Amino acid sequence: MFHDRIRLASLASKIMTADQAGEFFQDGMTVGMSGFTRAGDSKAMPVALAARAAKSPFAINLLTGASLGNDSDGLMASAGVLARRSPFQVDPLMRKKINAGELMFCDYHLSQPAEMLRAKKGLPIDIAVIEAVAITECGAIVPSTSVGNSASFVAQAKMVVVELNLSMPLELEGMHDIYLPGDRPGRQPIAITDVSQRIGSTSIAVDPDRIVGIVITDAPDSPSTALPPDEETNAIAAHVVRFLAGEVTAGRLTNELLPLQVGIGTIANAVTYGIAQSEFKNLTMYSEVLQDSAVSLLDSGHLKFASASSVTLSAPTMQKFLENLDRYRQQVVLRPQEISNHPEIVRRLGVIAINAALEFDIYGNVNSTHVGGTHMMNGIGGSGDFARNAHLSIFVTKSLAKGGDISRVVPMVSHVDHCEHDVDVLVTECGFADLRGLAPRERATAIIANCVHADYQPAMASYFERACQRGGHTPHLLEEAFSWHLDFRQNGSMKDRAEAMV
Amino acid sequence: MFHDRIRLASLASKIMTADQAGEFFQDGMTVGMSGFTRAGDSKAMPVALAARAAKSPFAINLLTGASLGNDSDGLMASAGVLARRSPFQVDPLMRKKINAGELMFCDYHLSQPAEMLRAKKGLPIDIAVIEAVAITECGAIVPSTSVGNSASFVAQAKMVVVELNLSMPLELEGMHDIYLPGDRPGRQPIAITDVSQRIGSTSIAVDPDRIVGIVITDAPDSPSTALPPDEETNAIAAHVVRFLAGEVTAGRLTNELLPLQVGIGTIANAVTYGIAQSEFKNLTMYSEVLQDSAVSLLDSGHLKFASASSVTLSAPTMQKFLENLDRYRQQVVLRPQEISNHPEIVRRLGVIAINAALEFDIYGNVNSTHVGGTHMMNGIGGSGDFARNAHLSIFVTKSLAKGGDISRVVPMVSHVDHCEHDVDVLVTECGFADLRGLAPRERATAIIANCVHADYQPAMASYFERACQRGGHTPHLLEEAFSWHLDFRQNGSMKDRAEAMV
Repeated sequence: MFHDRIRLASLASKIMTADQAGEFFQDGMTVGMSGFTRAGDSKAMPVALAARAAKSPFAINLLTGASLGNDSDGLMASAGVLARRSPFQVDPLMRKKINAGELMFCDYHLSQPAEMLRAKKGLPIDIAVIEAVAITECGAIVPSTSVGNSASFVAQAKMVVVELNLSMPLELEGMHDIYLPGDRPGRQPIAITDVSQRIGSTSIAVDPDRIVGIVITDAPDSPSTALPPDEETNAIAAHVVRFLAGEVTAGRLTNELLPLQVGIGTIANAVTYGIAQSEFKNLTMYSEVLQDSAVSLLDSGHLKFASASSVTLSAPTMQKFLENLDRYRQQVVLRPQEISNHPEIVRRLGVIAINAALEFDIYGNVNSTHVGGTHMMNGIGGSGDFARNAHLSIFVTKSLAKGGDISRVVPMVSHVDHCEHDVDVLVTECGFADLRGLAPRERATAIIANCVHADYQPAMASYFERACQRGGHTPHLLEEAFSWHLDFRQNGSMKDRAEAMV
Repeated sequence: MFHDRIRLASLASKIMTADQAGEFFQDGMTVGMSGFTRAGDSKAMPVALAARAAKSPFAINLLTGASLGNDSDGLMASAGVLARRSPFQVDPLMRKKINAGELMFCDYHLSQPAEMLRAKKGLPIDIAVIEAVAITECGAIVPSTSVGNSASFVAQAKMVVVELNLSMPLELEGMHDIYLPGDRPGRQPIAITDVSQRIGSTSIAVDPDRIVGIVITDAPDSPSTALPPDEETNAIAAHVVRFLAGEVTAGRLTNELLPLQVGIGTIANAVTYGIAQSEFKNLTMYSEVLQDSAVSLLDSGHLKFASASSVTLSAPTMQKFLENLDRYRQQVVLRPQEISNHPEIVRRLGVIAINAALEFDIYGNVNSTHVGGTHMMNGIGGSGDFARNAHLSIFVTKSLAKGGDISRVVPMVSHVDHCEHDVDVLVTECGFADLRGLAPRERATAIIANCVHADYQPAMASYFERACQRGGHTPHLLEEAFSWHLDFRQNGSMKDRAEAMV
């Protein structure tokens, strides 16, 4: 049974139901599950664990690559299966529990959990749950549409549960490049000097004795939730392209640019589509996730190679991708997120990093995570891995939210994920501010002129002017710095407070 | 003349006075000067430039390695010589001009200016001014007590002025390891896998035709301003040692630890002395600056090798160091700051980073730069290079300042240089908070219990409790978050406001 998928015959006896595998899980355990940006996640075990908890309550500490699909996070959170969760999530139900203080969530730079596990900074992994397309003759695990932290979880776990997903084509084999840095001291350089370079193996090695269960599944990944481009995201994309074209004109880049990293989501997707309509060619990506737009660029020939840790696509694009793996496998490599996001490689390659901001301030500090400074949205993800080490660090956002009641450009961000030092260019649909080489007061002038929506521009100019009168390298009026946020909290709009400033 | 110091005979004709060399400098030029943490800085040219500006005003854009000694920054700032300055300074007069908005200052992660120059992110260097102990047979420049950004400045400068410092012993030659990463694409890994490894040359190569002037000097470096340990810094050091000893006991470190990085200043110095009185042995440093304490550890045998970008010592320790260079040269290497602080190497080696904070908050965000959120102190320096990529990121500070009128632990920092994600352990004289693996609410509990001074503890607990009632992943009361800072600004003390919270 499944000879092509379970090639080490002795492992066939480990096939069991998800409910049977669920018995391995005990209260207080730390579990590492595959899954990164909803791709390659465990499909069956979250359901089994939630069902088991309904009968007999227990709670685990769950780590993943990044976000899970299939509402798994919400399902497990609602069932009370999760005491702790890291390093990233996008689930509305889970978010509610996190913000109520009922679920301890740790969001981390996505390159770092593997390093923390290796350094024993957190709890050791008891069980790894890994979605796979096959188990090799040696018992090694061939991942599906993401690698994430799976190799690190397997390396450390006492027990491994494999979810063999029959809906994932065997042709995914060969797309992965599994490499983990060695222990310290004595660690060697990571040898990647080109996005297409392979330095590891195509499967995750494991002592077959540690595989305690194989669960057969056939559910597809949850489709991407990125929305199609709209007028504003197209304007943002056009500004990014205009900025990059200026770099080419100035001789600082060629029209092959440098490897692109593009964050996940609607704006990032739009920016990638925008690049497809530009003069740039023979592009490469060194990113953490490939979205529909990346597949579109591969098809159009703009993109010659893409390195990532996952593919998160809409249903039709995923179908095309999976039906043409022989072709895409020549142009795509999936790596552990520690490698896709590694500062060493990001800095060496000189990645152009394009990530979305929740809000940014007049000095270029960026909030990527906390609504109103307090409520977690998703997590910092890989944005910090890339922004700090990039050749160019670009953050994008629409200038307004909630129909204009929120200005996403504020006097002072209510939470800082990326400090001014890590931000080169800010872009809204209004324009872009090139902050390179500017002191804080100059940055403010550029941001107010180019990125703030006209409705909030006079108020912002007033704030900055009055702050400058008080002095300082980074002028602020601390008593007013959050007044727009407070106005929104109390009155549902930043507008009144902003208008009062003019 | 100076045959042992100017070994390429043709260059002897380039000897001139500082005033003569000053004629090369034109209004609007960008100048790169040697000097890092007051070590190996240009001694004569700042004086000559200030004198020239007094007669005929002109202003330049000045880059250095880090801070200059000899009051040079203040002298040039007062004379109006500087229109722009980066990436770090410690001068009181310059600070005043920066905070008045009269001098545009850009503080950068110290590993990054060289990368920015290479990427042409800023203005190109017109003139490099480099303190040297010698010029080799090939015309290459042997730096003195720091390397900083000198190699990058020389690589790019149209003209190079060498300050040959006769008070710096020739025996410094061989202590430096000059290596610069290549251009992108195609850049290779930086080969360092051990703190003592040398991968470059002992001098800075330059086409001798670009050396336009050689100025003879003999002034010593400004001595270190670090104060001797006191009761509180000793307590901080003891907590750091206790934490590290716990790591050894837990099996997460051996008693050789991993390479240490220790920031500059009084507390950092005290921590290093504290480590000398511990059970740790055969230690190594991969740091940006070596202070008296590092020399003391080399002498006592606790430290077997130290890598840095500069040596900044008190006058008596500097004398000992310079008189025993044959010995110290076997145990010390000075590298470009791009390499001493490089994320690639810091992460590979697994550095234990210990840096000072100006203030931190209950969630572990750190302010390293801005007094009251607005006024620049010195600059972020290398703290971000190390903290983000370290095996362990430790920040230290006294819990109080201004005789107790300031709590250095606050509800929310007024400026963020290091976000919660980059901070593992916080230490004050009260104790340490180990934040690894904790969610924000757990971090707050640990910080309030272990790091906040008793005078402010009830108020902080009250703030946190009331914020939690309002909810959120990272609970805050935005309308009160800066109330302690505002109280200090208005009334000269945070105490009234803190007491009113209880």
